[in-house]
Amino acid sequence: MAQPVEIICVGNELLIGKTLNTNAQWLTKRVTTLGLTTRRVTAVGDDVNEISSAIKEAIQRRPSFILTTGGLGPTFDDKTLEGLAEALGRSIEVNEEALKMVQNKYLSYAQEGRMEVAELTPHRVKMAKLPERATPLHNPVGTAPAVSIEHENVTIMALPGVPSEMKSIFDESVASVLKQAAGNVTFFEAGIEATKVIESEIAPLIEKVMYSNPHVYIKSHPKGAERIPRIELHLSTTAKDSSSARKEVSKALLQLRELIQEKGGKIKPIKSET
Amino acid sequence: MAQPVEIICVGNELLIGKTLNTNAQWLTKRVTTLGLTTRRVTAVGDDVNEISSAIKEAIQRRPSFILTTGGLGPTFDDKTLEGLAEALGRSIEVNEEALKMVQNKYLSYAQEGRMEVAELTPHRVKMAKLPERATPLHNPVGTAPAVSIEHENVTIMALPGVPSEMKSIFDESVASVLKQAAGNVTFFEAGIEATKVIESEIAPLIEKVMYSNPHVYIKSHPKGAERIPRIELHLSTTAKDSSSARKEVSKALLQLRELIQEKGGKIKPIKSET
Repeated sequence: MAQPVEIICVGNELLIGKTLNTNAQWLTKRVTTLGLTTRRVTAVGDDVNEISSAIKEAIQRRPSFILTTGGLGPTFDDKTLEGLAEALGRSIEVNEEALKMVQNKYLSYAQEGRMEVAELTPHRVKMAKLPERATPLHNPVGTAPAVSIEHENVTIMALPGVPSEMKSIFDESVASVLKQAAGNVTFFEAGIEATKVIESEIAPLIEKVMYSNPHVYIKSHPKGAERIPRIELHLSTTAKDSSSARKEVSKALLQLRELIQEKGGKIKPIKSET
Repeated sequence: MAQPVEIICVGNELLIGKTLNTNAQWLTKRVTTLGLTTRRVTAVGDDVNEISSAIKEAIQRRPSFILTTGGLGPTFDDKTLEGLAEALGRSIEVNEEALKMVQNKYLSYAQEGRMEVAELTPHRVKMAKLPERATPLHNPVGTAPAVSIEHENVTIMALPGVPSEMKSIFDESVASVLKQAAGNVTFFEAGIEATKVIESEIAPLIEKVMYSNPHVYIKSHPKGAERIPRIELHLSTTAKDSSSARKEVSKALLQLRELIQEKGGKIKPIKSET
C-alpha cells in the first residue's frame, strides 16, 4: 500500500480563477512517480482559520505527509505558518536558523547592489517566524525558507507558492524524504487513444480487462466532440520493481486493444507520460 | 457578504498529475464574476468513500452551493452520484427524466449512423441513476445529464468532468441560479506590475493602502527570478454596483503606484483580467 499524501494549496488567487493550480499538478505527479499516493488536494484562501481547519482536517485523515504550497512570503496575507501553528497548537517564534537564512539572502542582495541596505525589517523577520520545533529548509531560488514539521505520525512540509521556488526546494529537500518513505515502489503508466467507439461501449471492456489484471488501474477520458468520439485510455500500476510494473501494464494494454478493435474501434498509441 | 461556494473535483487523473485542473480555474472565475465567493476547492479520487466524505465535510461548512465536476459517465469508476447519495443518506434510483435524456442521445447517435443500435445497456442506464429527489440538467454537448439536488440549505450541482460539457451545462443551467442568489453584486479587479523593488519592500506599502481602502483586497505575486525582481500586484473588490467597484479599485491603485514609485520602483499596467 502506497504511503498517502495530502496537498494543501494556499492562496486567494486559486479561489478567484486568477491562477491555474500548476503546483498541484507538478506535486501530484512527483509524489506519484516517487511511489506514494496523493489522496486529496485542497485549495483554501489566505485566511488563518481556513488554513488551520484544512490542516487539522487533513491530519485527522492520517496521511504520512502533508505538503502545503503558498503563504510563506513577507506580506500581511502570507499566513500559512500562522495557520499551521494554530492547527498544531504550537506557538510561533523567530527561528534562529531561519533568520540566518533570510539575513544571508538580503546581505547577498545588498552586495549585488540590488538594495541599499540589508536591514531586517519586520516584514523580513516575519519569514523566519516558524511554529516551535520546526526545521527551516533552504530556499535556493527565493528568500523565504520552507518549513518541515513532525507532528504525531505526519510530516508536514510547507513550500512557497512561487513555482520555481517550490520546485527547487522539493528537489533539494523533499523528494529524498518521500522516496525513502516509499521504499522500493515504482509507478508505471501508458496510454492509448481509441476512435470510432463511444465511452459507453468501452466501459464493459475496461471492466473485463481490470478484472483479469487486478493490479492495473484503467481510466477512460472522453476527449473528442460529440460527433467525433475520441477516448483516451490511461493504464497505470504501482509495483515493487519497474520491469514487473511495465509487464503488467503492457499485458492489460494488449488485451484492451484487442477488445476495442473487435468492437470496430481504431487504436493509436499516445506518448507515455512517465 | 458574498454567498459561499465550494467546488469538489472528482478524478484520479487530478491526483496523479495527469490532468491540470482547468475546470477549477474556470469555475472559480465564473463564480467570482457572478458575485459569489469560492471558499474551498477540493480534489478527490474516484472512490465512493472519498467523494462522500468530501461532500459531507463541505456541507458541514454550510456553503450556499456545492459544485462538483467529474464522475458522471458510464464507466465503473464514475462514482460521483453514488458518493453524493451516500453523503446525503438517499437511495439511488433510475430517474425517468434522466433516462429519457440519455435514451434520446443514443437514438440521435444511432440516427447519425455512429452506432448500429441505441440499446440501453446497463452502462448507459447507469448515467440515469440519480439520488432520489434529484433533478437532471440537460447536457447540450455530451451524454450524461448533470444533476441538481437541494439538501437542507445547500444546492448541490454535479457537473461532468469533460470541460466542454461542464462549461455548456454551467452556462445553460447553473449561471442563472448563482446570479440570482448573488443578487446585485459586482466583482472588479485590476493589476499592475512593479519592477526594481522586492516583495519585502512592497509589503508595508500594500498594508498602508489596504488600511485606507478597507474594501479593496491587494495581493502581491512575485514573478521574476531572484536577480530580476518583478512583482505582480492584483487589486480586487466586490461592490453593489460596477461603477463604485471600479472607483474603489482605481483609487487604491493610484495610491499604491505612487508609494512604489517613491521607493524607486517602476510600474507598468497589466491587462485587467475581468
